[in-house]
Amino acid sequence: MNTKPRIVVLGAGYAGMMTTKKLMKALSPEEAEIVLVNKHNYHYQTTWLHEVAAGTINQNQARIMIRDVINPNRVRIIYDTVVKVDKEESQVILEHSELSYDYLVISLGYETNTFGIKGMDEHAFFIEDFDSCRLIREHIEYQFAKFNNDLEADESSLSILVGGGGFTGIEFVGELVEKVPELCKKYDIDRGKAKIINVEAAPSILPTFDNDLVSYGRKSLQERGAHILEGVRINECTNEGFIVGDDNELIKAGTIVWTGGVTGNSILGKSGFELTKGKVTVNGDLRAPGHDNIFVLGDCAWVMNKYENRPYPPTAQAAMQHATTCVTNIQALIHNLPLEEFTFSDKGTVASLGVTDGMGTILIGKKLYGKSAAAMKKVVDDRYLFLLGGPLLLMKKGKIRPF
Amino acid sequence: MNTKPRIVVLGAGYAGMMTTKKLMKALSPEEAEIVLVNKHNYHYQTTWLHEVAAGTINQNQARIMIRDVINPNRVRIIYDTVVKVDKEESQVILEHSELSYDYLVISLGYETNTFGIKGMDEHAFFIEDFDSCRLIREHIEYQFAKFNNDLEADESSLSILVGGGGFTGIEFVGELVEKVPELCKKYDIDRGKAKIINVEAAPSILPTFDNDLVSYGRKSLQERGAHILEGVRINECTNEGFIVGDDNELIKAGTIVWTGGVTGNSILGKSGFELTKGKVTVNGDLRAPGHDNIFVLGDCAWVMNKYENRPYPPTAQAAMQHATTCVTNIQALIHNLPLEEFTFSDKGTVASLGVTDGMGTILIGKKLYGKSAAAMKKVVDDRYLFLLGGPLLLMKKGKIRPF
Repeated sequence: MNTKPRIVVLGAGYAGMMTTKKLMKALSPEEAEIVLVNKHNYHYQTTWLHEVAAGTINQNQARIMIRDVINPNRVRIIYDTVVKVDKEESQVILEHSELSYDYLVISLGYETNTFGIKGMDEHAFFIEDFDSCRLIREHIEYQFAKFNNDLEADESSLSILVGGGGFTGIEFVGELVEKVPELCKKYDIDRGKAKIINVEAAPSILPTFDNDLVSYGRKSLQERGAHILEGVRINECTNEGFIVGDDNELIKAGTIVWTGGVTGNSILGKSGFELTKGKVTVNGDLRAPGHDNIFVLGDCAWVMNKYENRPYPPTAQAAMQHATTCVTNIQALIHNLPLEEFTFSDKGTVASLGVTDGMGTILIGKKLYGKSAAAMKKVVDDRYLFLLGGPLLLMKKGKIRPF
Repeated sequence: MNTKPRIVVLGAGYAGMMTTKKLMKALSPEEAEIVLVNKHNYHYQTTWLHEVAAGTINQNQARIMIRDVINPNRVRIIYDTVVKVDKEESQVILEHSELSYDYLVISLGYETNTFGIKGMDEHAFFIEDFDSCRLIREHIEYQFAKFNNDLEADESSLSILVGGGGFTGIEFVGELVEKVPELCKKYDIDRGKAKIINVEAAPSILPTFDNDLVSYGRKSLQERGAHILEGVRINECTNEGFIVGDDNELIKAGTIVWTGGVTGNSILGKSGFELTKGKVTVNGDLRAPGHDNIFVLGDCAWVMNKYENRPYPPTAQAAMQHATTCVTNIQALIHNLPLEEFTFSDKGTVASLGVTDGMGTILIGKKLYGKSAAAMKKVVDDRYLFLLGGPLLLMKKGKIRPF
């Protein structure tokens, strides 16, 4: 091929932004053309959206103009909406144009999954993108603003119902327990009238955290007035609230937000990729099976941990690591070198519970080689002797071998 | 019941010793009788057995007299071999007696699994217990001692074949690359004549370690003269060596050691427990399903990580943590309190490659609560901004919220 290859990145989320940023550094302008396609002229931090929705953060703090971090002289930036990928023709169909590619990176993020719960699509807000979240913020504020102006106002209009006790749902409730008292004060409303209710079908909120952390989080939210309903199934969502449990009880609320599930972007299905739970089951090198020049990253990718036969978690942390592997592998393809396998390096997870509280685990994984590893091994062996028989056994049997 | 309950612990490995030790502290002599049953009057450190087998450690350093760490005035110690557990009668059948129990802890360790490879049981040594390992040591030394005394001696009699490139196999090879040069020197043999050969059927040795660590380990062993054969299937083991691969090539050796697989103690099956890969699939509280007073620990237990739908690793680290949960739960049963669920806390894994080399990962998992968790969350958010847009973006959008 005479002309230089064109790399097209679809979507400017965590995976897409980091990929574009790293491609800029990894490849000279002579080696490849880089194109970034995004619906908006801004990137938003998905993991901050619950704060935008609660109104506890200046909304513009949670977004970044793409041109502030991506050099438009090096990367062609197209603001348009992706309609589908035509894999046979190696073209991306956009709303206003078409675009051919030599290498394609699909990082279009997630969409909300309501698991077919009746009425959820129609009546609930979603923590899905920047626009959907500032609408939630305005909707909540409006409920409080109108309450004392409406003689027939029902207290339940102040209630906020959050469906789903996963990471996003609980972090959102964490912001609400701080925001709702402020709104009550601002609009002269008795704090007792505004309820915050979280509904989770599983026996416990935050299933990926351990018991200590879940207990801490639950208690922190309850002490600040949140109602946490666990093991409660949502049968239906109406314009009044959730209908739950065996007795079909109605929990009324003026604001209904669903945070209970996500799936990959629907453009994947429209483009004919084979999907696992709405995501593309990528190869170890993050390419779509059968497509040597298409990488799928972030929440669009179902990435298997082959050693443990389960998928890696769909987090921002993982998405950013996908970007690193993807850029390494695009370089390898351009230079005809072998591709590397993605492995996820877990740094732990911390959940916020409002501005001043939170809980989680940080994992500091340190690789050791050579003498320090040999020494650590002896420390491990000696620690056991100490636990079993105290200092005397350690002195008698300990591995104090010279090295 | 008028008399105090009897707790019987079977096996003095990592799980059994730590359980007995902790029971001594957790329960007063008035609360319960404690009985420990073990075949030998010593406990050996299973994770040091490869050193005993290679002869790189004083063998007695790898074992501890049980009476040196367990107080025989508090714990009745019975040196006998377990034949089976009679669950219906709540009795343990020993070779020389029978023993009733109120609470039973089964921690009888692993047995070698040859996966039905023909001839392996007959012709290979196993890294299985203290006795089997000092036999390997003596066998190797004998091969070197006789070499120059035997006019027709074949060089292959000096070769050591290690089947299986998992943790034990590779750690054993790590010891051999240090021991073999010593033996050559001692018995006036050219170092080039004695081969150390590791054979692994999987594409790579050490499948649970990441690529960097595996590469380091492989290189370290190869540089010291070990042959690492990966992706090579053993079809049969004869008294001459392994027959491998599609061509049925014979690799000859004077010492053949199999380290390629383990399973739970066969007493489990004889006692009628339901098994998964030779182990008892225990409940979350480490009890055998359907048996409220029987705990199964260590390598006898198949312990599921319910959040990730896979078993926890069968390591000494896990066995010692089992002991903690088991003792807590026996206390709970005695005092009619709710039992706790086992969760594994991974501290990482380090493999030795001889005395002076090694590699691995240590995981420092730190739980955070409250303000420190909230602060860490902001650090994570700010780190992303820094990665994406450097210090300027961090100053512009960073989460420097007062708290």
